[in-house]
Amino acid sequence: MADIEAQVRAQAEAAKKAARALSVMPSGAKDKALLAMADTLGKRSEMILHANTLDLEEARDKGLKRSYLDRLMLSEDRLEQMAESLRQTAALPDPVAKGDYSVVRPNGLEIRRVRVPLGVIGIIYEARPNVTAEAAGLCLKSGNAVLLRGGSEAIRSNTAISQVLAQAAYEAGIPEGALQFLETTDRGAVDVMSHLNGLLDVIIPRGGAGLIQRIVEQSSVPVIQTGTGVCHTFVDESADFEMALRIALNAKTSRPSVCNAMETLLVHGGIAEAFLPGLCRAMQQKGVELRGCERTRAICPELAEATEEDWSAEYGDLILAVKVVDDVDAAIEHINRYNTGHSETIVTENLKHAHKFQREVDAAAVYVNASTRFTDGFEFGFGGEIGISTQKLHARGPMGLAELTSTKYLIYGEGQVRE
Amino acid sequence: MADIEAQVRAQAEAAKKAARALSVMPSGAKDKALLAMADTLGKRSEMILHANTLDLEEARDKGLKRSYLDRLMLSEDRLEQMAESLRQTAALPDPVAKGDYSVVRPNGLEIRRVRVPLGVIGIIYEARPNVTAEAAGLCLKSGNAVLLRGGSEAIRSNTAISQVLAQAAYEAGIPEGALQFLETTDRGAVDVMSHLNGLLDVIIPRGGAGLIQRIVEQSSVPVIQTGTGVCHTFVDESADFEMALRIALNAKTSRPSVCNAMETLLVHGGIAEAFLPGLCRAMQQKGVELRGCERTRAICPELAEATEEDWSAEYGDLILAVKVVDDVDAAIEHINRYNTGHSETIVTENLKHAHKFQREVDAAAVYVNASTRFTDGFEFGFGGEIGISTQKLHARGPMGLAELTSTKYLIYGEGQVRE
Repeated sequence: MADIEAQVRAQAEAAKKAARALSVMPSGAKDKALLAMADTLGKRSEMILHANTLDLEEARDKGLKRSYLDRLMLSEDRLEQMAESLRQTAALPDPVAKGDYSVVRPNGLEIRRVRVPLGVIGIIYEARPNVTAEAAGLCLKSGNAVLLRGGSEAIRSNTAISQVLAQAAYEAGIPEGALQFLETTDRGAVDVMSHLNGLLDVIIPRGGAGLIQRIVEQSSVPVIQTGTGVCHTFVDESADFEMALRIALNAKTSRPSVCNAMETLLVHGGIAEAFLPGLCRAMQQKGVELRGCERTRAICPELAEATEEDWSAEYGDLILAVKVVDDVDAAIEHINRYNTGHSETIVTENLKHAHKFQREVDAAAVYVNASTRFTDGFEFGFGGEIGISTQKLHARGPMGLAELTSTKYLIYGEGQVRE
Repeated sequence: MADIEAQVRAQAEAAKKAARALSVMPSGAKDKALLAMADTLGKRSEMILHANTLDLEEARDKGLKRSYLDRLMLSEDRLEQMAESLRQTAALPDPVAKGDYSVVRPNGLEIRRVRVPLGVIGIIYEARPNVTAEAAGLCLKSGNAVLLRGGSEAIRSNTAISQVLAQAAYEAGIPEGALQFLETTDRGAVDVMSHLNGLLDVIIPRGGAGLIQRIVEQSSVPVIQTGTGVCHTFVDESADFEMALRIALNAKTSRPSVCNAMETLLVHGGIAEAFLPGLCRAMQQKGVELRGCERTRAICPELAEATEEDWSAEYGDLILAVKVVDDVDAAIEHINRYNTGHSETIVTENLKHAHKFQREVDAAAVYVNASTRFTDGFEFGFGGEIGISTQKLHARGPMGLAELTSTKYLIYGEGQVRE
């Protein structure tokens, strides 16, 4: 443990040292480095893919699931996608030094507030090695140094990727040490990271609810909570049935493993009998397992019974809980009780209900007549995304480059003192 | 402990219930309540001052310092100041529902981001009972419910103030339970608060470094770190001596106990011999105890020796550490090593040095040719202040009403689903 602590701390200190110079680097220099990083992924693909093969062999030996192996696997194509994502990040506007408040006070003091990098960002993530390149790119572009901690199953792939990226970045002029990756699978490293106050400015965990919960509970470094999504679709009495069916199917089945997928469908009691049978058939045709409340099962008796746990479950799979509610108020109450503050949608033709739902539902993204699946940085027009915050502090919803910055007040005076 | 946990949790739950209705309350209704709260402080002054007398008696019996007793003591005048502060808060613009991002995406989705209240804010503070009214006013104005935990020495005063304020707020239409005060001196209450994830959206500690440190370390609820200030003044080679002296004296002596007061003076080596003797005399005339580095003591041999601890000390008193540095780079390096990210100032006539100092010093407020004492919400034009954040996440520097809000994305569609 002492060794790990020393190692993690040394890497965080190196990152902090680099962060200072990086924070005032002009956009052009950062973009040049990002493009060099993109290029190196292609040039060094053989070495990266070899490391990935070793990770995959070990994962297969461990008997890990096919879907897991698929997320872990790299290929020339996937490396090219990672490179393309870095090039897109380079093309985004730099958030640093942008002013967002400016005032001249009666005493003549000129006060401006400008965006500055956060400093050193800790990212703790699981499985997918593409996060290594994406996170590194977004952090460097926003002027931050980064300390990455990836999942143990991808340790060789992540090590290879981060080594070639760090080297390319350094050769292109990024301060040495700005991109740090923890080349250890020791679980103690996460605990050490969580208490590096003064070295890490924030930790962003990306992964399952268990990982995130553990870090939120233990970390004294500020954490941005991301990703858990118990998302709802509420089909109101006035809904266009065809639209409601399309939205519900999209929200549940287009990619059930992601955090903006629907987990619970709420249906207004006044249309439940007319709407639910068709909905259930369509869902079942897509292979969705349905679990209904009592009123739902009175209409669709073949459904399994939903228990209390189902209302707060993030299945991440082709399973859907279905509940009949009395009205929009009951829908809002259910959502505010069981949701995780991610994405919620109402399908309605009623203006008052649409407005009420958007005002009163407590979530990062509240939709009217659209699928919850749109909640992400690209769909929202940010050009990139480091994660989706489900907390209210600092950032809420998809986090782009601006969310990786803080602010600083710059004050010009001519000798003013306070009375 | 179980009793305390149940009590704190019950009050937080009541606050959370109220927060929902409060979050969508129009400004007019909130302002009316704030004015009623202001009025009640005058009407119920007898009861509040009686409670305060009991607190003062106990504090005197305990032998607490005179300066402490002064902060604790209330009077008709001080109650009127508290009332006036509530009236000023009522007159400020409401930050809630203000839009700050808006885009129509190529697929026709209309995305807006608006400010929403954080929800329930926990405030943990020491000594001064005026915080009770100020914090309650700022939280309610920004649509937040609040759970207040004051210092044990002011328990009767705070209980009285919060009771009359809560009653006035409720009678004026604020949802019942929106203003909660923990009427207990049990120290376990703070530990319980720190782990009320899901009920409290943020904790803002206001008090000494020890209190803040303890809460940052233990809390799983997000915390905004406030108030610790190891602030520096750097007198550059080109400084106007008269201005430098005026700024340094103001920063150190105008109110040494506050967080934006100077703790360390840095002087450029090229002017140290010319500047320091006069500076030392002027400080000593104001009763300031000086502690110097070796180079300082070579010029002013009567000074005590500064040790390593002095460079990171927040004296909060008429004590000043003085150090001679080689140049602006050395000054920046010293500051970034020892400061707490609060307020720093350079006195210079050199444009390049001013620019470099502002860019490279890592702090919430970086001044050129003005006293660090200006860092507060009133001086910055926010009309009020809940504290001064020394962290980079969520808010940095003086926090006004806007900093007590989060955001929410509102998305209108016409049936869009994601490919």
